[in-house]
Amino acid sequence: MPIVVTEIERATADVAVALGPFGVATIHEAQGKTGLMAPYLRPIYRPAQISGPAVTCEVTPGDNWMIHVAVEQCQPGDILVVTPTSPCEDGYFGDLLATSLRARGVKGLVIDAGVRDIATLTEMGFPVWSKAIYAQGTVKETIANVNIPVICAGTLVHPGDVIVADDDGVVVVKARTAKEVLEKARAREESEAAKREKLASGILGLDLYKMRESLAKKGLRYVKSAREG
Amino acid sequence: MPIVVTEIERATADVAVALGPFGVATIHEAQGKTGLMAPYLRPIYRPAQISGPAVTCEVTPGDNWMIHVAVEQCQPGDILVVTPTSPCEDGYFGDLLATSLRARGVKGLVIDAGVRDIATLTEMGFPVWSKAIYAQGTVKETIANVNIPVICAGTLVHPGDVIVADDDGVVVVKARTAKEVLEKARAREESEAAKREKLASGILGLDLYKMRESLAKKGLRYVKSAREG
Amino acid sequence: MPIVVTEIERATADVAVALGPFGVATIHEAQGKTGLMAPYLRPIYRPAQISGPAVTCEVTPGDNWMIHVAVEQCQPGDILVVTPTSPCEDGYFGDLLATSLRARGVKGLVIDAGVRDIATLTEMGFPVWSKAIYAQGTVKETIANVNIPVICAGTLVHPGDVIVADDDGVVVVKARTAKEVLEKARAREESEAAKREKLASGILGLDLYKMRESLAKKGLRYVKSAREG
Amino acid sequence: MPIVVTEIERATADVAVALGPFGVATIHEAQGKTGLMAPYLRPIYRPAQISGPAVTCEVTPGDNWMIHVAVEQCQPGDILVVTPTSPCEDGYFGDLLATSLRARGVKGLVIDAGVRDIATLTEMGFPVWSKAIYAQGTVKETIANVNIPVICAGTLVHPGDVIVADDDGVVVVKARTAKEVLEKARAREESEAAKREKLASGILGLDLYKMRESLAKKGLRYVKSAREG
Amino acid sequence: MPIVVTEIERATADVAVALGPFGVATIHEAQGKTGLMAPYLRPIYRPAQISGPAVTCEVTPGDNWMIHVAVEQCQPGDILVVTPTSPCEDGYFGDLLATSLRARGVKGLVIDAGVRDIATLTEMGFPVWSKAIYAQGTVKETIANVNIPVICAGTLVHPGDVIVADDDGVVVVKARTAKEVLEKARAREESEAAKREKLASGILGLDLYKMRESLAKKGLRYVKSAREG
Amino acid sequence: MPIVVTEIERATADVAVALGPFGVATIHEAQGKTGLMAPYLRPIYRPAQISGPAVTCEVTPGDNWMIHVAVEQCQPGDILVVTPTSPCEDGYFGDLLATSLRARGVKGLVIDAGVRDIATLTEMGFPVWSKAIYAQGTVKETIANVNIPVICAGTLVHPGDVIVADDDGVVVVKARTAKEVLEKARAREESEAAKREKLASGILGLDLYKMRESLAKKGLRYVKSAREG
Repeated sequence: MPIVVTEIERATADVAVALGPFGVATIHEAQGKTGLMAPYLRPIYRPAQISGPAVTCEVTPGDNWMIHVAVEQCQPGDILVVTPTSPCEDGYFGDLLATSLRARGVKGLVIDAGVRDIATLTEMGFPVWSKAIYAQGTVKETIANVNIPVICAGTLVHPGDVIVADDDGVVVVKARTAKEVLEKARAREESEAAKREKLASGILGLDLYKMRESLAKKGLRYVKSAREG
Repeated sequence: MPIVVTEIERATADVAVALGPFGVATIHEAQGKTGLMAPYLRPIYRPAQISGPAVTCEVTPGDNWMIHVAVEQCQPGDILVVTPTSPCEDGYFGDLLATSLRARGVKGLVIDAGVRDIATLTEMGFPVWSKAIYAQGTVKETIANVNIPVICAGTLVHPGDVIVADDDGVVVVKARTAKEVLEKARAREESEAAKREKLASGILGLDLYKMRESLAKKGLRYVKSAREG
Repeated sequence: MPIVVTEIERATADVAVALGPFGVATIHEAQGKTGLMAPYLRPIYRPAQISGPAVTCEVTPGDNWMIHVAVEQCQPGDILVVTPTSPCEDGYFGDLLATSLRARGVKGLVIDAGVRDIATLTEMGFPVWSKAIYAQGTVKETIANVNIPVICAGTLVHPGDVIVADDDGVVVVKARTAKEVLEKARAREESEAAKREKLASGILGLDLYKMRESLAKKGLRYVKSAREG
Repeated sequence: MPIVVTEIERATADVAVALGPFGVATIHEAQGKTGLMAPYLRPIYRPAQISGPAVTCEVTPGDNWMIHVAVEQCQPGDILVVTPTSPCEDGYFGDLLATSLRARGVKGLVIDAGVRDIATLTEMGFPVWSKAIYAQGTVKETIANVNIPVICAGTLVHPGDVIVADDDGVVVVKARTAKEVLEKARAREESEAAKREKLASGILGLDLYKMRESLAKKGLRYVKSAREG
Repeated sequence: MPIVVTEIERATADVAVALGPFGVATIHEAQGKTGLMAPYLRPIYRPAQISGPAVTCEVTPGDNWMIHVAVEQCQPGDILVVTPTSPCEDGYFGDLLATSLRARGVKGLVIDAGVRDIATLTEMGFPVWSKAIYAQGTVKETIANVNIPVICAGTLVHPGDVIVADDDGVVVVKARTAKEVLEKARAREESEAAKREKLASGILGLDLYKMRESLAKKGLRYVKSAREG
Repeated sequence: MPIVVTEIERATADVAVALGPFGVATIHEAQGKTGLMAPYLRPIYRPAQISGPAVTCEVTPGDNWMIHVAVEQCQPGDILVVTPTSPCEDGYFGDLLATSLRARGVKGLVIDAGVRDIATLTEMGFPVWSKAIYAQGTVKETIANVNIPVICAGTLVHPGDVIVADDDGVVVVKARTAKEVLEKARAREESEAAKREKLASGILGLDLYKMRESLAKKGLRYVKSAREG
């Protein structure tokens, strides 16, 4: 029978918050190219950028009852992660649920399904990453689990893991590695800032990254015209 | 042989106009979750919101001739609904046709195919809901029907039915039920406004909708950790 | 073995620049409905509009090494065209590469794959037409060709051909026909301007294009109600 | 509230049976290219060919309860047509329901959703045209309508209409036009048989259909090499 | 850095073998509707049915090097599960690798990517469930992990878990619950056999499952014609 | 204006025939991984295998007129390649056209669109590789080119190039390189036969291809359990 887990171990709040500005692409690289959700999840408006611990919520096809249950498990700073037990693009979530989540201080929603009322959500500034935008409503007949590990958009999410979401998509950082990932992201960002400056000055990546020799070793040849090739 | 029906029974103008602001999601619910077009129809810009009686137009694949015929059948306040007899994403419609429709007071276009010139359409503020954006042009060789019942994005549309379109998508309201749907939408909206206020104050949906007992009956259990589950 | 062609014949700069403002739809018509890329290529922000000669770059799946090689082959005013040797939606391109291309005066990117860092690219005003937005990074292990003819989004592109890209998509103009296409686009634009004025005044396309007779010949009938049909 | 309509007007049995062997493509042409379901409906095995009156059944996402209700409304020779109120590819139907339908003399199933147990269905020789093959099961919680007009795979189906299904797909023939369509299909088939014989003997379609003149009028030119063109 | 785990805990051989014949749909139900892979995984030929412990293998886009590494980790009776670190439909696997796996007694392959040489694989009777059939070959340049937990077609697979695959798709049974699932599957199968017999005799599901009362409670009404509704 | 090129340079007949049995995957590798059509082209039945020179034919959306023109340009042993000027999945081709092509000795059809009458085509043993199976018919109103270079399923095809098609898909071999590709395919096949024998005897690819050292250099580590990693 379905359960609601009421005590989850959240990643430290300041680490969760600090991860956000580095962006999904940098965080994903910093943790060894893991944890990235599928690219079909898109923000309903842009730009948008949030980070925070995940509360996870299963729903059945065409049934959003458990989102109402999950709302109660959310704390300020959390991000709600909703995933259907079988693929469904119905509009599980609209402005009433967003009002309720906002009242609890929740930062946003990641949902492997559809949402609706997006004009209102956009006006409210309540960010949502979803698989679809679809006015099709849902029923409240079947129960499922809250705060168990779920697979959302192809990626495993444990309750309490950090969600980082921005215009590029959504990435999950495991709660226990969040601090380490934050440090790696900082190091990466610093290294990139230095590179960015050099590239902006016109230095080529070929030289900056010393690629010419390895390209030649692989057999790359420069010719004046394709006929020579 | 194809026909053009010149006298159609339009939904009352003020009802058609009044339905729009309630939005696609509310109208869809108010009429028992019917009449919703498939979510692949998207507005070319956002926000966008219109409502009005439908003039319906069939086109054949890669051929937009009948849109020119349909323009003449449009009256001020109408919405043109175009659907191909076989799926096609070509750019059937661009800024010249939009200029012509605007000259007749048409509010916008819903097309189960592609459109082009969207930068100009956006500048003009002429809203379009389409399946695709594609510069591929069309020919003018084959005829089809205007103002007969059509299936557009999976939904049956009779000429004169009300089309309501916004950022969430497109819904069709049958002409003869439009007034009743309007009343239900109003009632729904009022009920939602009251709920929204309560949810914004922090009252949980679980309590507002009195869900706790029925969830327990279904067997939902609250546990402190997943191990208990 | 892969080659880099260092001397390509670019379309004349002023012709390449002049083609842009006519827009993809007009250019596509002006050259006989050829050269259009598939509609899944979309700009990462709108509005966006560029034109210029193509530098072409092959990449292997999940590997962006050759983009670094291609950067060096770009000149001011060029547009970089990247295509994978097998379909892949990874994020081959981000803000560092954009910084490098901008330093060389490159106008934008057309890529039949994914990009990332789109918030930064948008802030930079560096336009990109891509198949996907995906934070998934790439490696630098395998080589491929630069400046050979490639197929990008279903269309053949020779190095030096003119790329025209806007909110409607992307079209390729062969270098040797660019001037002729420009003239045809101008003629078409003038003709359309005249038509637009007439249509805006309320003249119907049916009359402007003298379609009534040919429609009747095809057998189109006007009836007052569908029952007559 | 949902209803089950218990008395529907079925197309005449012998007409329904006689339509089948002409095949979907011929029937579709014979009735003016109308009534064809979307090509994503595929038979679970080939070859397969059936025809008969439709019993229609709505289901909600992930819920197959109403199929059990619809079974009772089926008579020998019928074809069950199931369509979800919102897109869903769950496995609504398996070998137990097939056993039940077979016991009632039902010829097969057309479902705009998923099915499972296809190895057993294939062994049973019970033909199914579905959108997906998916082992994901369903619940029995929500009700919907049986024997009302439905849209299945993009096509309107009234209860009692004739369904013709084969390896090419599925087409619907309105009950009241079934006899007329049958006659047209026969005429078409005879005409095609004559043509087939001539084409098999080597006579070209260009000559058989006398196309050469009209092609020339459209401006088609024959050249020895593309350079001439 | 990537690792190859050489000692994994496999589900008991006889349990793994015994699960297969119950079929994917039954196993999926028996374990509470969990562990099902996405329906885009399809067998390259039908009928096909296998079960056995999983050896898991990550591959990078367009690179099948790690499959060669994974082969060595396979034991008789195993099923190889291959998943790319980013979506890719290249043909990672062909008849040479199948020959090698067969020599080790491996029962088949589940791959969330493409395969090739399917005519030969079919002749060999080597079953494969794949996302695509694509002749596009791969390189051997980058390494990844073998025998770590992976997500394949949306489902978490631990090395040693039981894979059950048939014409309906693929399901994963956790090694530690395999025996319990087997027992439930047996119970389910027996119950279904009894039901099948009754349904075949013409007893309706409505009566067999005693649904009439609960349908009425939900509000379902039987009417003679839709007008009454 | 559209042209029909009547004299094309075909690849030598015996070379074209000899290429087929090596199969699409081997030919594709033998010519440096070029010329492969997109994997959405699938044979209507399996197994199927043909090779021969291409006659190329453009068609407009929903219009198959030019196929009738192209039939006349076909010679015994040819393969007809049909591609729409804009994507369309209509059933352009059925049993009458197949009868006509067979009368001329044509081996099969490759079409980047839909076909119909597949039960009859299967009975006739006339192989077709298509994008879709769809009973939707076409008209005969617009002309296009025959025997000019076309892009089919993402690949450039010149008239006279060799088409090789089998259960894995379709590959194009340029007429002027066909002989060289044949030799490389033979060499590759011999090398693979030797490898196949060794792999069948149980020798690992890791040893046969001497991969152990390079894997170690890349940093791959073998560990007994994931905890060590």
